[in-house]
Amino acid sequence: MTREEKTAQLYGLWAGASPEGGEVAPHQHDMQAPPALDDLLPHGLGQLTRPFGTAPVDPGLGALSLLRTQARVIAGNRFGIPALAHEECLAGFAAWRATTFPVPLAWGASFDPDLVERVGAAIGASLRAVGVHQGLAPVLDVVRDLRWGRVEETIGEDPYLVGRVGAAYVRGLESAGIIATLKHFAGYSASRAGRNLAPVSMGPRERADIVLPPFEAALREGGARSVMHAYTDTDGVPSAADQALLTGVLRETWGFEGTVVADYFGVAFLQSLHHVAADRAEAAALALRAGVDVELPTVDAYGAPLLAALDAGLVDEATVDLAVRRVLRQKAELGLLDADFDPVPPALSGRAELSPEAVRGTVDLDPPEHRELSARLAAESLVLLRNAAPDGSPVLPLAAPRRIAVIGPQAGAPLAVLGCYAFPVHVGGAHPDLAPGIELPTLYEAVATEFADSDVVAVAGCGIDTGGTEGFGAALDAARGAEVVIAALGDRAGLFGRGTSGEGCDAPSLALPGVQQELLDALLDTGTPVVGVLLAGRPYALGRAADEAGALVQAFFPGQEGTRAIAALLSGRAAPSGRLPVSVPRTPDGQPGTYLRAPLAGPSDVSALDPSPAYPFGHGLAYTSFAWTDLTPATPDEVPTDGTVRLALTVTNTGGRAGTEVVQVYLHDPVASVVQPEQRLIGAVRVPLAPGASARVHVEIPADTASFTGLAGRRVVEPGALEFRLSASSTDHRLRYGVRLTGPVREVGYERARGARLTVG
Amino acid sequence: MTREEKTAQLYGLWAGASPEGGEVAPHQHDMQAPPALDDLLPHGLGQLTRPFGTAPVDPGLGALSLLRTQARVIAGNRFGIPALAHEECLAGFAAWRATTFPVPLAWGASFDPDLVERVGAAIGASLRAVGVHQGLAPVLDVVRDLRWGRVEETIGEDPYLVGRVGAAYVRGLESAGIIATLKHFAGYSASRAGRNLAPVSMGPRERADIVLPPFEAALREGGARSVMHAYTDTDGVPSAADQALLTGVLRETWGFEGTVVADYFGVAFLQSLHHVAADRAEAAALALRAGVDVELPTVDAYGAPLLAALDAGLVDEATVDLAVRRVLRQKAELGLLDADFDPVPPALSGRAELSPEAVRGTVDLDPPEHRELSARLAAESLVLLRNAAPDGSPVLPLAAPRRIAVIGPQAGAPLAVLGCYAFPVHVGGAHPDLAPGIELPTLYEAVATEFADSDVVAVAGCGIDTGGTEGFGAALDAARGAEVVIAALGDRAGLFGRGTSGEGCDAPSLALPGVQQELLDALLDTGTPVVGVLLAGRPYALGRAADEAGALVQAFFPGQEGTRAIAALLSGRAAPSGRLPVSVPRTPDGQPGTYLRAPLAGPSDVSALDPSPAYPFGHGLAYTSFAWTDLTPATPDEVPTDGTVRLALTVTNTGGRAGTEVVQVYLHDPVASVVQPEQRLIGAVRVPLAPGASARVHVEIPADTASFTGLAGRRVVEPGALEFRLSASSTDHRLRYGVRLTGPVREVGYERARGARLTVG
Repeated sequence: MTREEKTAQLYGLWAGASPEGGEVAPHQHDMQAPPALDDLLPHGLGQLTRPFGTAPVDPGLGALSLLRTQARVIAGNRFGIPALAHEECLAGFAAWRATTFPVPLAWGASFDPDLVERVGAAIGASLRAVGVHQGLAPVLDVVRDLRWGRVEETIGEDPYLVGRVGAAYVRGLESAGIIATLKHFAGYSASRAGRNLAPVSMGPRERADIVLPPFEAALREGGARSVMHAYTDTDGVPSAADQALLTGVLRETWGFEGTVVADYFGVAFLQSLHHVAADRAEAAALALRAGVDVELPTVDAYGAPLLAALDAGLVDEATVDLAVRRVLRQKAELGLLDADFDPVPPALSGRAELSPEAVRGTVDLDPPEHRELSARLAAESLVLLRNAAPDGSPVLPLAAPRRIAVIGPQAGAPLAVLGCYAFPVHVGGAHPDLAPGIELPTLYEAVATEFADSDVVAVAGCGIDTGGTEGFGAALDAARGAEVVIAALGDRAGLFGRGTSGEGCDAPSLALPGVQQELLDALLDTGTPVVGVLLAGRPYALGRAADEAGALVQAFFPGQEGTRAIAALLSGRAAPSGRLPVSVPRTPDGQPGTYLRAPLAGPSDVSALDPSPAYPFGHGLAYTSFAWTDLTPATPDEVPTDGTVRLALTVTNTGGRAGTEVVQVYLHDPVASVVQPEQRLIGAVRVPLAPGASARVHVEIPADTASFTGLAGRRVVEPGALEFRLSASSTDHRLRYGVRLTGPVREVGYERARGARLTVG
Repeated sequence: MTREEKTAQLYGLWAGASPEGGEVAPHQHDMQAPPALDDLLPHGLGQLTRPFGTAPVDPGLGALSLLRTQARVIAGNRFGIPALAHEECLAGFAAWRATTFPVPLAWGASFDPDLVERVGAAIGASLRAVGVHQGLAPVLDVVRDLRWGRVEETIGEDPYLVGRVGAAYVRGLESAGIIATLKHFAGYSASRAGRNLAPVSMGPRERADIVLPPFEAALREGGARSVMHAYTDTDGVPSAADQALLTGVLRETWGFEGTVVADYFGVAFLQSLHHVAADRAEAAALALRAGVDVELPTVDAYGAPLLAALDAGLVDEATVDLAVRRVLRQKAELGLLDADFDPVPPALSGRAELSPEAVRGTVDLDPPEHRELSARLAAESLVLLRNAAPDGSPVLPLAAPRRIAVIGPQAGAPLAVLGCYAFPVHVGGAHPDLAPGIELPTLYEAVATEFADSDVVAVAGCGIDTGGTEGFGAALDAARGAEVVIAALGDRAGLFGRGTSGEGCDAPSLALPGVQQELLDALLDTGTPVVGVLLAGRPYALGRAADEAGALVQAFFPGQEGTRAIAALLSGRAAPSGRLPVSVPRTPDGQPGTYLRAPLAGPSDVSALDPSPAYPFGHGLAYTSFAWTDLTPATPDEVPTDGTVRLALTVTNTGGRAGTEVVQVYLHDPVASVVQPEQRLIGAVRVPLAPGASARVHVEIPADTASFTGLAGRRVVEPGALEFRLSASSTDHRLRYGVRLTGPVREVGYERARGARLTVG
């Protein structure tokens, strides 16, 4: 292969970006003008960028269009090498008319990796059906600052939970033959003051113990075949130029053999935003040497500048060869290099005619089984934060109220259930007249359907972040006339300033956007019981409502089936079983913050600030009650540092309704050679129980789970006391079990991220 | 020496703490009960803790009491070794009736190291006069989060400014024979979310380039002989246990030979707060091995637990010997081990009679020359942020207004000028009936005196952080009846929750405490011109007032002469010349933040949040105007990486009044191998000019000033383009000069912190 043919495998082309598609990201037009496809094709092409997620296109037409482009790519280069097509799939295939699933924060709330794996498989099947090979998900960033706009895209604030659920999604996606792409490697979520792309202040230990474990889990347990670098720098080194990270940790330590792809424009950003390269050639050389194999979304630094860098000796050809080999190996694995490779995707395979007329409307990316999965995940992800009238009696489920007022800016907003990477939001923002292409009942509509015998009214009261209190009058009238108020509050997802949550939509504080807190307070003042429903990309401080609302449901963005799931929870047709993957703060301030705090980060008389949350990580109520009993160890109370602790407990549904308890295991390490969080999650399992039923939960904890990065920078298990807390939330510890690890300090590898194994039965 | 005699040199005793003194810090009573002095004395004693700063005592009696204790110490051990006596001296000797100086943040605002050096010498002279040997100052923490309660104790947010001014204070203190103690080593100011003592997320490069340079400057240029560890941990390692920092960086790299002392209770905190030690013996061993020579304030871990640690082999006797040698060398240097050592301090020397009756009232710690220095520093530190009526004409100086209303909670508050370490605040908080012991005219009184021909009234309107708007009516009536309003707003300094600024008084956001913003807005609404005066420990977002106030004076805590200095500025008897050592924010949010931001931390279309300040670092107006002209280089525009750039410029006072320009030099490094701030201060000089007068300012910039910590972790100067900005603030660049460094990458040592040399004339 010529140099041009090699480097052509290392970049993508945003062929699908149409002029009317609008910008989906700032800096897109900061790029060098990309050459026309035909000029590029003689050298070949590594990737085709976002064939579906750029503009609204009928799925059948999209598949056909991609097929035709792919055929041109194959025909255009002398080796007949096809391009890899990649697409976003954060919470569903980011294509028009594709099923939207709950956002990753809701996956975290479900504490159900198995279900998330099935969701990943479903999304992967849709991608594969239409000719896409690689999906740019999951996001494995661990929340460090709730102000960050992309919190909705994360799985939560705990590395174990993120790793477990993220690896499950990867397994699902990869099981469908789709290359999963772990992002953003690494540290992005710790951007200073929650500002998107701002530098990250973090030391190597925090990176190793908090940021990296989910990636390691998703590679080792999920089998992800691609990794995307983060936009940020950490301690002055941009991830795209971080050889120690992209090559040292990822490849040399973890043995990763897949591809590292650039976050969009990230290679050029080394010049234009980070200023660690004087020009695109230096940027290309820096990124390639660090370990970025593929430039996305389109050719820029890895085009002519990379060739110039080769000529100038800024990077050697062996480094290019290494990246090309990784790309081609992946294409070979996918069968793209097979002699009999057929570019016709499954959805179009076997068709007699492949014309626009013949394929339009014939490919279904929103089949019933995907909707069912979306509904099930939505149901499992709803977190009941509070459920108590002033007299302490439960307010939910609602007993056939005569009149229900659904009040708030989310009451009648069809897009209220979607995050910023859902197609109707991500691309629909530039196409305001576009039908969303999927069924999106509003919360009002879902409640009216669920409570068919009730009189249901809806009033917005105010906008998400627009308008003042002028609409409060009508809202309060409706509230006073109702038996119960469903306060529908939260975020509008959007990109780069179009929303209050989503990429670039960072929040100044954790106060509800606009005048929503005032509306909520005014609703509380009416005396009508208020059930708050938060359709939001991040948790917000709720002021008085945290103590005064009749009930509170934290829904995050539950996807297209979300409002029905909420309505079913309100009526009692379904039971709540979600648990918080992030803390709900008590005050709008106090960020950055995390439940994974060392004792000195907690409430203390040395600071006037109390960071205690209103509702802690892991919290979530049920419609029934559970007893935790009969903790019995199956191992001695002294265990060697290479041993395993085994114990079991019994959970019993002591209430009158079916429900699901989530048994959580936290590790408390009372003395360690470096400062540890007061506790951290090391295991969890959902335990669904009929009324009166019991289950035995078996817990197996390798001592390696207690490992951390020691003073010398290596992961170690130290001898000494440990306490395992068997808990209904990070502050509701039901049972405790102490052991003492004995023997030498051991250096260990991966096992911290794997955590404990919990089995039911 | 026996083991007991050795370890006795390694701890202090809080002999002066009287029961009625109240707690000055949380956790004080968490300590093991200290033994009685007499039980300790046979082994000797390393330090006497806070003989003056614990309870109100007449300076003469205090000196006598210290002398008597010292005599007991000397008589009590077989070698006759005296104790070192140490005291706080953050902004003046923390003793009753001692002069209070402006707080360090005001030192930074003065941009006048020479004056700060004289202040240090004055404070040192007072300490030395009464028998104190060591002062626990200066604070060299670089501000990283303005919410932190101790911002008032820092010199600002720029390491160069902190180092320059901090080293000057050290020189002054040391010139008086007092051991200066650099604190807090290192990273404390980056405590997460501004919460006192919370863990620090920071990598080694940020530590090396931002946190450490002021310490290096104060050691190398100031000659400080002691360093105090920080309370926090950085990336999981508590400073008190950080051998790489306390021994590696401090002693092995920097060659420090003095003592490292514990921040109060800090050794025990390794067990009780950081949980890196199982007991006090482990804590003692950890701290001593790391390099903490002396435990303060009183014997705890370094008592019996250290002996137990020695017995158990947790630390070896050679390590104890090393610390003892450092302590004794210091005592020898001070002459304490001389055969003819006389413990009678200078203030009592030569007295015929040393009885309480004879010494009471005879020692003056507030002499006229100290007051004069305090006044001069106060005058230089006042920052005029804004000075423009709606028509653009200046509002200040005030031209003999008929009626002035001084409105706000600071109007009649005598302590409004003092920070949390000033004696009347620090100890007076526990003695509410105590006379402050120094003259503290309120702002109302100072204005009434300054404007003797005006009718001056004062109304509080509200408390600092107490009460609602019930007092607004009277305040607004007074405002409407006046020609000008002086809005006196800000903080109440205090310890641990007693104040809104000071140790432990961390702020949730940068909104003015209480209802002060509402008061300010209401005052603006009256239409009477409003001159805001901020007596505050940190900068606050000022809302509309940043654009609508007639004038704004940021005064920080200017010490006992501060209100007079403000009044003189208002009348025009004095001219403003201070410059901001910290940015004044536009919004209450956005922390952590610093002007030293990489491009990606600045305003950008990738985030909805704009961190631009209302008034930037280095900003400050004068009553006159200045022209910057005739920039001429004295060196070529290519300079080797071991060379020096020389240039000169002319500053001319083009207005009608005398004034002082502060010429600031910022370095912009357009491309570097690791991410650099958009710019950083590398030099500054005050240029006082009569109307019409000019001065030539010569700037000498060693290329080493451009050094930073490179990818390999070593400090390097790289070849390439640099831009020097000659500026009136960090955003007001008057002249620019570009050079290209040529030659090899050079590894360098100290020079980054030294900065450029500016001379006038």
